[in-house]
Amino acid sequence: MRILDIIDKKKKGLELSKEEIKYFVDEYTNGNIPDYQASALIMAMFINKMTPEETANLTLSMAYSGKVLDLSDIEGIKVDKHSTGGVGDKVSLVVAPIVASCKIPVAKMSGRGLGFTGGTIDKLESIEGFKTNMTIDEFKSHVRDHGIVVCGQTDALAPADKKIYALRDVTSTVDNISLIAASIMSKKIASGADAIVLDIKVGSGAFMKTIEDAEILAKTMVDIGRNLNKRTICIISGMDEPLGFGIGNIIEVREAIEVLKGNGPKDLLEVCLTISSIMVYLGKKANSIDDAREIVLKSINDGSAYRKFREWIECQGGDLSIIDNISEYKKASRINTFVAKEDGYIGSINAQEIGKIAMLLGAGRETKESVIDSSVGLIFEKKVSDYVKVGDVICQIHHNGYKDINMIIEQLDKNINISKQKQTKGELIYRIIK
Amino acid sequence: MRILDIIDKKKKGLELSKEEIKYFVDEYTNGNIPDYQASALIMAMFINKMTPEETANLTLSMAYSGKVLDLSDIEGIKVDKHSTGGVGDKVSLVVAPIVASCKIPVAKMSGRGLGFTGGTIDKLESIEGFKTNMTIDEFKSHVRDHGIVVCGQTDALAPADKKIYALRDVTSTVDNISLIAASIMSKKIASGADAIVLDIKVGSGAFMKTIEDAEILAKTMVDIGRNLNKRTICIISGMDEPLGFGIGNIIEVREAIEVLKGNGPKDLLEVCLTISSIMVYLGKKANSIDDAREIVLKSINDGSAYRKFREWIECQGGDLSIIDNISEYKKASRINTFVAKEDGYIGSINAQEIGKIAMLLGAGRETKESVIDSSVGLIFEKKVSDYVKVGDVICQIHHNGYKDINMIIEQLDKNINISKQKQTKGELIYRIIK
Repeated sequence: MRILDIIDKKKKGLELSKEEIKYFVDEYTNGNIPDYQASALIMAMFINKMTPEETANLTLSMAYSGKVLDLSDIEGIKVDKHSTGGVGDKVSLVVAPIVASCKIPVAKMSGRGLGFTGGTIDKLESIEGFKTNMTIDEFKSHVRDHGIVVCGQTDALAPADKKIYALRDVTSTVDNISLIAASIMSKKIASGADAIVLDIKVGSGAFMKTIEDAEILAKTMVDIGRNLNKRTICIISGMDEPLGFGIGNIIEVREAIEVLKGNGPKDLLEVCLTISSIMVYLGKKANSIDDAREIVLKSINDGSAYRKFREWIECQGGDLSIIDNISEYKKASRINTFVAKEDGYIGSINAQEIGKIAMLLGAGRETKESVIDSSVGLIFEKKVSDYVKVGDVICQIHHNGYKDINMIIEQLDKNINISKQKQTKGELIYRIIK
Repeated sequence: MRILDIIDKKKKGLELSKEEIKYFVDEYTNGNIPDYQASALIMAMFINKMTPEETANLTLSMAYSGKVLDLSDIEGIKVDKHSTGGVGDKVSLVVAPIVASCKIPVAKMSGRGLGFTGGTIDKLESIEGFKTNMTIDEFKSHVRDHGIVVCGQTDALAPADKKIYALRDVTSTVDNISLIAASIMSKKIASGADAIVLDIKVGSGAFMKTIEDAEILAKTMVDIGRNLNKRTICIISGMDEPLGFGIGNIIEVREAIEVLKGNGPKDLLEVCLTISSIMVYLGKKANSIDDAREIVLKSINDGSAYRKFREWIECQGGDLSIIDNISEYKKASRINTFVAKEDGYIGSINAQEIGKIAMLLGAGRETKESVIDSSVGLIFEKKVSDYVKVGDVICQIHHNGYKDINMIIEQLDKNINISKQKQTKGELIYRIIK
């Protein structure tokens, strides 16, 4: 097999065989195919698109490009969860302990923040002592002993995805449904999931801007799952404004705890309930998603979800005294406020730009080398469609002496719109696709 | 300007501006854009195609990526000639002295063989002492003193073309009309031509397989020329069988001399007359191509073309005693024959495969590092539509003890077809496009 023939075929818009795709993925990962040939092929895949079969084969080749976790010795259906990412998305912190408390093993690998805000691992690491690096054996023994573990991604899993993603990032070939789907699904398959729930965010703060695109991505991933015998359900959820109130690492941990205690912002709670329910359903602890929701609500209401959270944090090295005093833990040294300049209803909050503002404060990474300040961020007191009067606080700015707070306020002003008429909120959960 | 934005634009099928194309060409040539980004962009250009304006801008940027020869101090219209390449194509060796003998300055840079047979420079170098490396000053003084010079391509001219071509070669992006046209035209413009004649070969032995494709390429190049104020005329000529009788470096020099003396194979003579006539017409030594043909014929018949050839070879360091005894010079040590196994008409001679057979004997380069044996090659005694009887020699195999001559004969047998019915020959000159 020759890579030139494979590029030639795809450039003509023909369908690649399973063997051809596997050859490309394996040889590129091994360094036998240079970047310039890989990028030519990926551009051809991008423009000429890929069939469902090609996409499934790409996913499989990428998943098996390195180690594939074998979790078969852990009892129960291992259900994994992934979000395409949004601002204020702390859902994993909430659903992992909920689902574990419902006796479904949670063995999850999560990423660091790639975009402007921290990832699940960054958020968890804001709890001093919490350990996210571990061997596969440690990882497995955590699940066996506590039913829950979340660790950082290891390079040993789906190395092809890492290499291909890095190349797509610098060749303007990120935004292609098949490539996105294969990237997400290959990691989930490599980490040993039996079933997968995907939260596809759509809206101003998400990568997917339209429900139609999100639906195509959802269907592509559900198809891949079906092809590979991994039950997959996607939800399409709104990301037109940040999810919940808080953005920033420890700020989001605090909010996750609120939800686990049965409080917290309504929108965040609803997304967490939906995803947990689907996971419990896929884990075969309920006959329908509605039944699963009852189980999930019970685990929150009777405190078992929060107890599981504490067990989790402790078993991965976090100090429970931190959790008990979370509201005082790592408080930023200064709080400024962004207030309404006029009476009216909040019309829109541009989630993407809000994420960038949080990044400027130090909550995310501007470059790979940036160090995150886990205490800083934004806390909204008002959300879209809320009524405000002049001087009402819309948003708190938590920082440690940021050099140009006026600029931050100016940026907030640009991206939060107040209107005289009440805006109807976008949907929170648009679709569930299975 | 950012290369990622340029890739993004082209991948969406939008038209790139002159500035964007120039930015890509300049920065890639300077090494500021890595190969993997260039190959992604080139694949996007390939699949989404380029507009005539983009193609002209690409040509111009590539032409001006390095030195551009200024031949304005040499009197007369400098007409350059280029062939897309075919098997047995020794036309440049003939037309250069013809045109020079018609008082049109010939200042030509030629390539070495990239495909399976030698290039013009390889053929000329088979004449011992003939010098093809020279400074620009030497180059110019040759034209001034003798009206003719042919030298090897310098890296200083159109370096972008060299770099982009090398990348296209390894990313399966060679066969795109705009990219081919820009590559050819940029080199001609950089070498200071005022007007250009292009011989586009079409048929089994050529890169272009159909007249329709050749016509699109021709029109693209004529358009580029018009855009850049360089009169350009293309001929589309047949390459279904090798041109002339001989294939191989010194073998082709011998045949070129025959044509200059007024003899030689009819098909080769006709192509040489057509191209010379167009060059003389573009050089404004005649009011029409037909008038120019009379001038060209006269220069052959009165010996001035051959005299100019001798002057040329001598002034570039070749020994005239070689030319005087060319039939005995560098004769291969052995000659085998390929004979007809049945009576009938020659139905087809697969030019491309014949070229590869000549390469196996040593007439061309299998890899960049291969050393050419200028004495070896093939000489046909019969061509398509000729009648043969069992035992008639169809082709002589000139070699120096090739290890497996039976395999060569087997290959010839596979690629030369004899049929009971007389085949009508394909056209020789399909179109002249101006």
